[in-house]
Amino acid sequence: MAEWVYIREIADYVGQDVILKGWLYNKRSSGKLHFLQVRDGTGIIQCVVFKGEVSPEVFHLADHLPQETSLIVTGTVRADARAPIGFELAVKNLEVVHLAHDYPITPKEHGIAFLLDHRHLWLRSSRQHAILRVRSAVVKACRDYFDNHGFTLLDAPIFTPAACEGTTTLFPVDYFGDTVYLTQSGQLYMEAGAMAFGKVYCFGPTFRAEKSKTRRHLTEFWMIEPEVAYCDLDGDMDLAEDFIVYVVQRVLETRRAELTTLERDLTKLEQVQKPFPRISYGEAIDLLQQKGVAIEWGADFGGDEETLISETFDRPVIIHRYPVANKAFYMKTDPQDSRLALCMDVLAPEGYGEIIGGGQREDDLATLQAKIRAHDLPEQAFSWYLDLRRYGSVPHAGFGMGIERVVAWLCGLHHVREAIPFPRMLERVTP
Amino acid sequence: MAEWVYIREIADYVGQDVILKGWLYNKRSSGKLHFLQVRDGTGIIQCVVFKGEVSPEVFHLADHLPQETSLIVTGTVRADARAPIGFELAVKNLEVVHLAHDYPITPKEHGIAFLLDHRHLWLRSSRQHAILRVRSAVVKACRDYFDNHGFTLLDAPIFTPAACEGTTTLFPVDYFGDTVYLTQSGQLYMEAGAMAFGKVYCFGPTFRAEKSKTRRHLTEFWMIEPEVAYCDLDGDMDLAEDFIVYVVQRVLETRRAELTTLERDLTKLEQVQKPFPRISYGEAIDLLQQKGVAIEWGADFGGDEETLISETFDRPVIIHRYPVANKAFYMKTDPQDSRLALCMDVLAPEGYGEIIGGGQREDDLATLQAKIRAHDLPEQAFSWYLDLRRYGSVPHAGFGMGIERVVAWLCGLHHVREAIPFPRMLERVTP
Repeated sequence: MAEWVYIREIADYVGQDVILKGWLYNKRSSGKLHFLQVRDGTGIIQCVVFKGEVSPEVFHLADHLPQETSLIVTGTVRADARAPIGFELAVKNLEVVHLAHDYPITPKEHGIAFLLDHRHLWLRSSRQHAILRVRSAVVKACRDYFDNHGFTLLDAPIFTPAACEGTTTLFPVDYFGDTVYLTQSGQLYMEAGAMAFGKVYCFGPTFRAEKSKTRRHLTEFWMIEPEVAYCDLDGDMDLAEDFIVYVVQRVLETRRAELTTLERDLTKLEQVQKPFPRISYGEAIDLLQQKGVAIEWGADFGGDEETLISETFDRPVIIHRYPVANKAFYMKTDPQDSRLALCMDVLAPEGYGEIIGGGQREDDLATLQAKIRAHDLPEQAFSWYLDLRRYGSVPHAGFGMGIERVVAWLCGLHHVREAIPFPRMLERVTP
Repeated sequence: MAEWVYIREIADYVGQDVILKGWLYNKRSSGKLHFLQVRDGTGIIQCVVFKGEVSPEVFHLADHLPQETSLIVTGTVRADARAPIGFELAVKNLEVVHLAHDYPITPKEHGIAFLLDHRHLWLRSSRQHAILRVRSAVVKACRDYFDNHGFTLLDAPIFTPAACEGTTTLFPVDYFGDTVYLTQSGQLYMEAGAMAFGKVYCFGPTFRAEKSKTRRHLTEFWMIEPEVAYCDLDGDMDLAEDFIVYVVQRVLETRRAELTTLERDLTKLEQVQKPFPRISYGEAIDLLQQKGVAIEWGADFGGDEETLISETFDRPVIIHRYPVANKAFYMKTDPQDSRLALCMDVLAPEGYGEIIGGGQREDDLATLQAKIRAHDLPEQAFSWYLDLRRYGSVPHAGFGMGIERVVAWLCGLHHVREAIPFPRMLERVTP
């Protein structure tokens, strides 16, 4: 009796009879031969149905299988140098589990709206499959990095009472009569965690009621946020750099086949090595002006400016010390220059924009209180956060990295909507 | 120049001078000696300040340090068999980073409301620290299990358009003018994923607008949900059993110190070995009746019944094949007995209640459509879900496991509120 195996492990069964359970991805015929491309979620293998080796019923059946029909195939594993995976299956028997009539996604070109409407089926396409396999490897690499570097995972809450950076992009929720908000960042909670565990991280969904349609924004996206006690801006940049290099290397090791399916230029990713260039905000302004951009000190960078800066380098670039006025209240002011905040962003190369934002946090109670007032924020809501400066305050720093932007960069995607299984955007909350 | 090290790695530095950066957890004095218990998030070490070995200023300072003051200690690591961690630090110098006056959580007894109000500080207490270290190990073990068994992580969306099990416990959100809901389960999305990847799991926060106050409920909790194509109820039970045994063993291996801090009876956890007893719903009813419970076939189990059943066994028990009428529309009816659903729950031992719920899903299109109508659910909202039965439907099964309940069980907690960093309950959404 043959054993049920997955295509991923087929190399271990050469010469043996096995059972595959999967779906028909594609097929072609030539007289006495039917070639069935069968997928089982772990790979695609060509199953060869030869008229002389199966019953007439099975041969006839193989000629009339609609795309995405679920089926159980029994056959012998053969090495075949011409096959994309190096093996094929000589079919002995075929059993249909369920006939799929008129599968809506065909090899022809479909519009993006149609594909997004059929996201639950589009996931089966080899390109989407590859992207989401890369995503799973990115997530694992991120978690492994922090788990292996002495960080404790500390999940941040999703329901948050306070609005950290204004309410215009917040989703309010009626919480048994009170208004709470869906989190935009776990940072404030991670600061509490860093004082308790030294090094912590959270990794979960965050929300932004983003009304603009851009190729870099989702309303629901996943973010990983480490926070370290007794860490300054330099230590924070070191951490971000080491982390990104690790994640890229791990993805190159474990998802090379998927990146190849996506026709990604791997040499670009192999260049992601330490050290990353580190330039100040002022230097970035100079760089943009040299490139002919009409921008003055004090202005924010938009997507176009980020692209221009990042294209100058062959690996991620860290920009540090932005103007205080452009940054959130919790950023620590540079003691060397009170116009500047001890913060940093990491821009991905090839125009993929900001993937990390972070910095050193204000750790002085009176200064933080003054900043909260200056930003017109409700001090009462931040009372617990101020406690962290009342009881054993220490220098500390951290950052947040958006997963979809990293996946888009590593996979070479034009839009982040393909970097998450079920994207949510301004006009899309289905399926 | 001494090196900054963490207490966790102190054993590597015996006889050497090191720098610790942390907080004062506790202290006592006896004449010429001050004993400072210093924590740095990775452990607690006794730092001995001997009058003859430090400057008079440092000796005086050591006598006047308030609890939770942040400080940098330089000293020599000494092996000491009497010390809980086997080492202590002979202090050479002390530097205060920030004096903490009147830290609100003192060694005296505090009420639970006070502690929850100060959750951001309570995390620093050794018991809470231990619980959340166990939680981090549970999460890692869960992810590693599925990552190492061929599953692809597929994050389910948080914003969901359809209400799967009635709207009374859903949190609605205004999504740019439309009403959507916060997810209660990623299962339907994982079913789409299983058809694309064979074996998938999601792991994220889920939400329940639970109006009752019980020790087993949170409004926001984390759930891991695997789903497997070509899997039946027996395979699902095998998976749940293997998974739980792995998680418990991993926690025993990596968090023994924390479980000891919590005074957990480890022999109870060591008993969690295969095979788990598997009893049908009908057998569970018989068992309860034998124990004198007035319950009839068809009734749901409450917390009391679950406790009575689970106390009968020394390890988790699997209850399978509940009445169809008590279960969600997507459960497959038992072909052997149409009164029963091919579902299963796993109850933790020692009265910790249900930790897993799952089963085989209905895979026939017409049957599922009839069930959706019978449950008065809007068929249009499930159109994409029905597509999974239109195009290559296969038998499939999965389950969901609530992380906080598992942490509560493993740590021996009375209430799940301590099993999550920042618990959200009916009357608690702060800090």
